[in-house]
Amino acid sequence: MTTVAVPLPPTAPRQLSHEQRLDRLAEVAVKAGLGLAHGQELLITAPLDALPLVRRVTEHAYKAGASLVTTFLNDDELTLARYRFAPDDAFDRANVWLQDGIANAYRSGAARLRIAGDDPALLAKQDAGKVGRANLAASKAGRAALDIVTRHEINWSIIAAATPAWAALAFPHESPENALAKLWNAIFASTRIDADDPVAAWKAHSAHLQKRSAMLNEKRYDALHFKSSVTDLRVGLSDGHKWLGGGSVAGNGIACLPNMPTEEVFTTPHKDRTQGTVASTKPLSYQGVLIKDIRVRFDGGRIVEATASEGQSTLERMIGSDEGARKLGEVALVPHSSPISATGLLFWNTLFDENAASHIALGQAYSTCLEGGETMTPEQLASRGANDSLIHVDWMIGSGEMNVDGIRDGQAEPLMRSGEFVQG
Amino acid sequence: MTTVAVPLPPTAPRQLSHEQRLDRLAEVAVKAGLGLAHGQELLITAPLDALPLVRRVTEHAYKAGASLVTTFLNDDELTLARYRFAPDDAFDRANVWLQDGIANAYRSGAARLRIAGDDPALLAKQDAGKVGRANLAASKAGRAALDIVTRHEINWSIIAAATPAWAALAFPHESPENALAKLWNAIFASTRIDADDPVAAWKAHSAHLQKRSAMLNEKRYDALHFKSSVTDLRVGLSDGHKWLGGGSVAGNGIACLPNMPTEEVFTTPHKDRTQGTVASTKPLSYQGVLIKDIRVRFDGGRIVEATASEGQSTLERMIGSDEGARKLGEVALVPHSSPISATGLLFWNTLFDENAASHIALGQAYSTCLEGGETMTPEQLASRGANDSLIHVDWMIGSGEMNVDGIRDGQAEPLMRSGEFVQG
Repeated sequence: MTTVAVPLPPTAPRQLSHEQRLDRLAEVAVKAGLGLAHGQELLITAPLDALPLVRRVTEHAYKAGASLVTTFLNDDELTLARYRFAPDDAFDRANVWLQDGIANAYRSGAARLRIAGDDPALLAKQDAGKVGRANLAASKAGRAALDIVTRHEINWSIIAAATPAWAALAFPHESPENALAKLWNAIFASTRIDADDPVAAWKAHSAHLQKRSAMLNEKRYDALHFKSSVTDLRVGLSDGHKWLGGGSVAGNGIACLPNMPTEEVFTTPHKDRTQGTVASTKPLSYQGVLIKDIRVRFDGGRIVEATASEGQSTLERMIGSDEGARKLGEVALVPHSSPISATGLLFWNTLFDENAASHIALGQAYSTCLEGGETMTPEQLASRGANDSLIHVDWMIGSGEMNVDGIRDGQAEPLMRSGEFVQG
Repeated sequence: MTTVAVPLPPTAPRQLSHEQRLDRLAEVAVKAGLGLAHGQELLITAPLDALPLVRRVTEHAYKAGASLVTTFLNDDELTLARYRFAPDDAFDRANVWLQDGIANAYRSGAARLRIAGDDPALLAKQDAGKVGRANLAASKAGRAALDIVTRHEINWSIIAAATPAWAALAFPHESPENALAKLWNAIFASTRIDADDPVAAWKAHSAHLQKRSAMLNEKRYDALHFKSSVTDLRVGLSDGHKWLGGGSVAGNGIACLPNMPTEEVFTTPHKDRTQGTVASTKPLSYQGVLIKDIRVRFDGGRIVEATASEGQSTLERMIGSDEGARKLGEVALVPHSSPISATGLLFWNTLFDENAASHIALGQAYSTCLEGGETMTPEQLASRGANDSLIHVDWMIGSGEMNVDGIRDGQAEPLMRSGEFVQG
């Protein structure tokens, strides 16, 4: 099994240079992550520091037959300049024209790659009210594009690039050079770049996660019960829910891996059937602000109490984005022995941290996690329990002491014990 | 007069650092170039090497009240990757969704700043057929956005940033460091950054060009006759043509300076009334390919013969873009004593070289250069003689030996002698 706990290698294997590993990451992102088809356009967003990886991804995309790669490079200083110098009335505006354009790119057949690696704390010192207003405006402007992605109509993927700001947060006791090297090593190891054939390794890993999903789909649980010293939460699952994990086939017929790394299996909870209390087990970086020690209480599916030891106002603004922001859109199971968890590191990046622990997400549900959901109307999706929101924010609740029971017809059966699957 | 011939200073004045001059350039671009209004969005395109200038422009834009600045940073390697690795069938595609989005940005009130500085010879070694097909597809996709700019519906401006590739071409005998410093000096000097008050200096210069335009508008010439040892060209002017120069008020009511530097006065020729032969006096960099020693013959407004000592196939493809690409869309007068001409340098960049010499442009006409043109239908514009095309390409025909006569009712009067205005 590819998810057996093995610590990530502390240094790169001697036979591959950094440049070679970067090239392999680019190749695996194009071939396994996106499954890019001949003639497809590709839209990339990336932090400026990821430019060497962007160039290699672009090369592999064209070699795979891409017709045109359009890349938006984000510079942190340009993002910060708005908070430092713009007038107060600026923060309710978004570039609607660009977000509409991106939705049209998807509609006309483009694939989508996000390269994550932005400074997790970029906006931490900025005015929280302005950050919230700007993000709300951006979320509204980007809703149509996000819907196409969450409905999985197109092939898309997210990979990561190590950047100095992120590395400094993930490895606070290392020199900048060592921190960057260690973060790259973690990215390469968790994306299976050092395997003899990374694309084949991803196919095997994807098959393993698909098998686990199939096992859970046979169970037809009504709910999951999470229990630890800090959590006692019953998550009702949506009617006709479907577990997914590993690769999946998009609405355009192309098989892709939406997250690299990925260690999770996930499905859609029922928006009105979550009950109890839950505590985060890792900090959350939400749009540049860190939120620590989240504790919330759900009643009838809805958050009725929420606290955090740090970033509470950001948490409150997040769950106040709209009605759906107080309800669950995703529940995901990850063994505590996942290779990312086994590093013992806090990555301050959801793409990594969510694959180190079982997690829940507030906000928009994935319609692909409902049988027949891809073709349902919003009303049909809601009647099955799928949540609707401008946001989709994952946060981590799993740990080595988490037990999970599956509940069907009022009967509980052990699903995970001390963070590990009882079966498979 | 601000256009009296003074050689550009070879080095920066001692009192201003490079950073200070960069900041002044950014400020003058926002305040005099764009005239950015409170609450306006701003769209910037720039080469990646111009990032320090982009950051300063962004700061000044927000200080001037911009609601949101969206910047597209272009990386030469990403542009080249398509030519190196993409399949042949890729080159007829363009990112229509992005070009439509940009047109929508303008329609929703955004201003536009282009920072020029791309490698003038970036695509010189790539397959000319692919370059031509890609540019044609991009031109078609960008037509709606370009129309909004050429109709001057929004405030827009073009400024320049020195980049290593451009500097190497402009100063081939200098070290890379010296070449870059000299190109920056030329940019700063020609954009009046070293004046005590650069914004005030630009207002004075703009008033001077507006006065020259007013003088030409009183003349009501039917045609201009360009004559030198290599050129004998009669350019018929459009019916109800209007000369423009310096700043102008956009359709959205905002005064801006579309080019910085600018030394020209220009108007719209009649698309069917140009006759004779004309030779370029400076090489043209057209979409990454250099075209040298252009010689063309016009008959009835249309190019019927065209040769070049270098880049002839690119020239032929350019004038073959569509029917309007063989006809004139602009004629512009620049004294040979302009400060840019006085440098004696070839900049390999139209923004500079066109302000060192009188020039003509093939392709799209500016409807703003016709009395009442802003509100005319395409049919009305055509009936006055305004040309229509996907392209608009300026090339230089002026020199210190160029004489120009103004012709009205069959009578010629001297307008320029040996490259200088006879009056004003």
